Amino acid sequence: MGKCDQFHSLLNDFYTLTLADGCYAQFGSDTVVYYDVFFRRIPDNGGFAIMAGLEQLVNYINNISYSEDELDFLKNSGISEKFVEYLRNFKFTGDIWAVPEGTPIFPGEPVVTLKGSPAELQLIETAVLQFINHQSLIATKANRIVRAAAGHGVIGAGARRSHGEDGARLGARAAYIGGCNGTSYAGSAMEFGIPPFDSMNHSWVQLFDNELDAFCAYAKRFPEKCVLLVDTYDTLRSGIPNAIEAFNRELVPNGYRPYAIRIDSGDLAYISRKARKMLDEAGFPDCEIIATNSLDEYIIRDMIMQGAKVDTYEVGERLITSASSPLFDGVYKLAAVEKDGNIVPKINISENVTKITTPGFKKVYRLFDRDTGKAIADLITLADEVIDENEPYELFDPDYTWKSKKISNFVASPLLKKIFDKGEVCYKCPSLPEIRDYCEAQMYTLWEEVLRFENPHKYYVDLSRKLWNEKQSIIEQMRSK
Amino acid sequence: MGKCDQFHSLLNDFYTLTLADGCYAQFGSDTVVYYDVFFRRIPDNGGFAIMAGLEQLVNYINNISYSEDELDFLKNSGISEKFVEYLRNFKFTGDIWAVPEGTPIFPGEPVVTLKGSPAELQLIETAVLQFINHQSLIATKANRIVRAAAGHGVIGAGARRSHGEDGARLGARAAYIGGCNGTSYAGSAMEFGIPPFDSMNHSWVQLFDNELDAFCAYAKRFPEKCVLLVDTYDTLRSGIPNAIEAFNRELVPNGYRPYAIRIDSGDLAYISRKARKMLDEAGFPDCEIIATNSLDEYIIRDMIMQGAKVDTYEVGERLITSASSPLFDGVYKLAAVEKDGNIVPKINISENVTKITTPGFKKVYRLFDRDTGKAIADLITLADEVIDENEPYELFDPDYTWKSKKISNFVASPLLKKIFDKGEVCYKCPSLPEIRDYCEAQMYTLWEEVLRFENPHKYYVDLSRKLWNEKQSIIEQMRSK
Repeated sequence: MGKCDQFHSLLNDFYTLTLADGCYAQFGSDTVVYYDVFFRRIPDNGGFAIMAGLEQLVNYINNISYSEDELDFLKNSGISEKFVEYLRNFKFTGDIWAVPEGTPIFPGEPVVTLKGSPAELQLIETAVLQFINHQSLIATKANRIVRAAAGHGVIGAGARRSHGEDGARLGARAAYIGGCNGTSYAGSAMEFGIPPFDSMNHSWVQLFDNELDAFCAYAKRFPEKCVLLVDTYDTLRSGIPNAIEAFNRELVPNGYRPYAIRIDSGDLAYISRKARKMLDEAGFPDCEIIATNSLDEYIIRDMIMQGAKVDTYEVGERLITSASSPLFDGVYKLAAVEKDGNIVPKINISENVTKITTPGFKKVYRLFDRDTGKAIADLITLADEVIDENEPYELFDPDYTWKSKKISNFVASPLLKKIFDKGEVCYKCPSLPEIRDYCEAQMYTLWEEVLRFENPHKYYVDLSRKLWNEKQSIIEQMRSK
Repeated sequence: MGKCDQFHSLLNDFYTLTLADGCYAQFGSDTVVYYDVFFRRIPDNGGFAIMAGLEQLVNYINNISYSEDELDFLKNSGISEKFVEYLRNFKFTGDIWAVPEGTPIFPGEPVVTLKGSPAELQLIETAVLQFINHQSLIATKANRIVRAAAGHGVIGAGARRSHGEDGARLGARAAYIGGCNGTSYAGSAMEFGIPPFDSMNHSWVQLFDNELDAFCAYAKRFPEKCVLLVDTYDTLRSGIPNAIEAFNRELVPNGYRPYAIRIDSGDLAYISRKARKMLDEAGFPDCEIIATNSLDEYIIRDMIMQGAKVDTYEVGERLITSASSPLFDGVYKLAAVEKDGNIVPKINISENVTKITTPGFKKVYRLFDRDTGKAIADLITLADEVIDENEPYELFDPDYTWKSKKISNFVASPLLKKIFDKGEVCYKCPSLPEIRDYCEAQMYTLWEEVLRFENPHKYYVDLSRKLWNEKQSIIEQMRSK
């Protein structure tokens, strides 16, 4: 086996194939339409999410190539011969704009905008959503956990409980973007160059006649980065004393220092304080303490408030599945159709008001205060609107329109970058450490009130007056029909 | 691209590689040890879980073959040359027993037992857990949803919000085992032969000048299985009347019958009743109603209680991530070590009492009442114990030992089957429809009290007297040290 191509091309809900087939027959490949990807709810009721998954999306779209098996399957499943032929030589021909990975994003704003034929845009719908939804979910969760850890290290783990290998593999990538220091998953360390994190488990200890023998054997074999798991039998009475003894026997005489002990059960805050004292008194103030055991941002915050002496938190299952909020609800919606050279906005009116879309080919600006560098609001405009930074600009709430605010002294920075131009990639994905650094720096652009865990301030995502008027008039038009 | 090998071989938490390396050096490949996989908590506080993921696990173990890239990575990451050479020609040599897919399983009992060298069993730890934890999670959730739907159809969906492609691909497989009728994911339909489910989306409707044109175009193009999505603008005033009009214009005159309408927003119970009436009155009592929109077992149960007229529930994100309970917490624990021809039981004693393991090489029996065919209890014994079905057997609670019960007239059926024998597969995985049928039939072996959604009866998982005594004496032995 070994490493193979990362993705199947047939990454589709079946209906996207049927509809792409229908679109190809109905509208051909010259009709131009616009789709937006946006999300509605921030996981864990947080103040913002983190964009991720773009690099995999770019690679996927750039490498779509259906195998004969896939084409046969489609032919036998009712897809037309003509469309199967189209797929045989498929090459994406459209334009894509997207928010760079690591950027804070907010509900309701386009984070990806796509322009192309109805058939090709239908065809890639499932893949676009899967890549963005999955990695944005995990990057957002990791970012919360890293912020809760308040400067202490956070290692991403949990491959044993991820939803399949991609869950572990891409999840580790997203967690690194969100701020984790490394990964326990070897596959992701290899593929993405994420610092791998090593450890010990209970069975190593159990394989020996007693804990001290197990620790000494491990320290002897792995002296350079020796992590001993101290809770197999009794952390304070046996584990830590044995660890200290093993350090003294196997490491110190050979010129090594211990790297860490790991605690995986019991009252982590209490035990870590005791452990710190024992290690310090034994002459190992440099030996780190690593805590594991179903951690998440809530538990870590509590532990820190209770004076836990933990240097690194290894966070597994609750990070890799975003357990407390395991869904990122990005959707893929038609926004406009070109007709006779004009862009005709399209809307989806739902019984659920939150499901109503914002029509038109649009642009998103993030408005920063020139003095503080903080983000004031995001502003969605029609694509051809220009924001004059030298004039005061009136923002207003799209739901409660009497709530308005005039801003000046701001910079209007376009949020989306062009990724594909007429089917060709025109964007160089930054390296993973670059994305991670960028994400960290982005935190300084957000007000504390938005960064807050509980009841964060709702960041403003506003529509320009022109776009708002257009949306209202389309709604009224549709309702009157 | 196209379809490729399903798995990397390097499906490892990094520490499993380090420890396998250490084990190989320390214990060689002749030492024999035993590991158990068991889980602790049933998702959604249900009465049982459904075993799944075995076929992928068998394929993985049977096909492990590290690429040169993988071996290089390991060499450069501190894994010893000697162990890298061992991996270069790796072939699993051990025995594995496992509970067949589709079987109800309960906390604390071994669902996989492995016998082999410490190195090889360390090496496959992450993969074993990932396959079993992921698919058992989704099969269990699907089974809950299917039971809530009380005979109505359930389609598995949600690829757009799965945690990576494996989440969608293998999740659809597991959902089918749990009882779903089909999948909306084309990849899984192709790979596993699961019936694909087709549909329409809002953008098809929006691409046309009006809803009726969109419906007519679709019905004309796909007359055989025409599903119209009726909630793009206004379900009752526009969607359903237009659907009926399209059926009458495009299907009926050409000898076709409509397949279904789909409702994706609004008050599904209320709208479905209205829709049923409108379709019936229009002469389409055979047109099905499909409901979608963040459904799960709780919402479906409520809808049915409120007289919803839904024929098929398409369940997406909350199934494919098991959103209300997204973790299956299977663990992989050393149970015994062979020493001088004897099997020496091994235990992990934790501060968290629930984390204490049951030591020894063990067997699990499911005890069925001969008259009713219902499962009475599962009984964990030492591997060499024999249960005499002709004698009354005394069961007792392993925690509250004064709670005991004498049973007779029972059948003791071994729960685990042998899957690998000295490294060779000795088990034929049943076909997916066979597993699904078997899972459905298994429901009849469970008492209603165990099947219940809220506060189900805790099914008995007991230890034999001999095993219980051994466990206690080891705990006392360890504590006294």
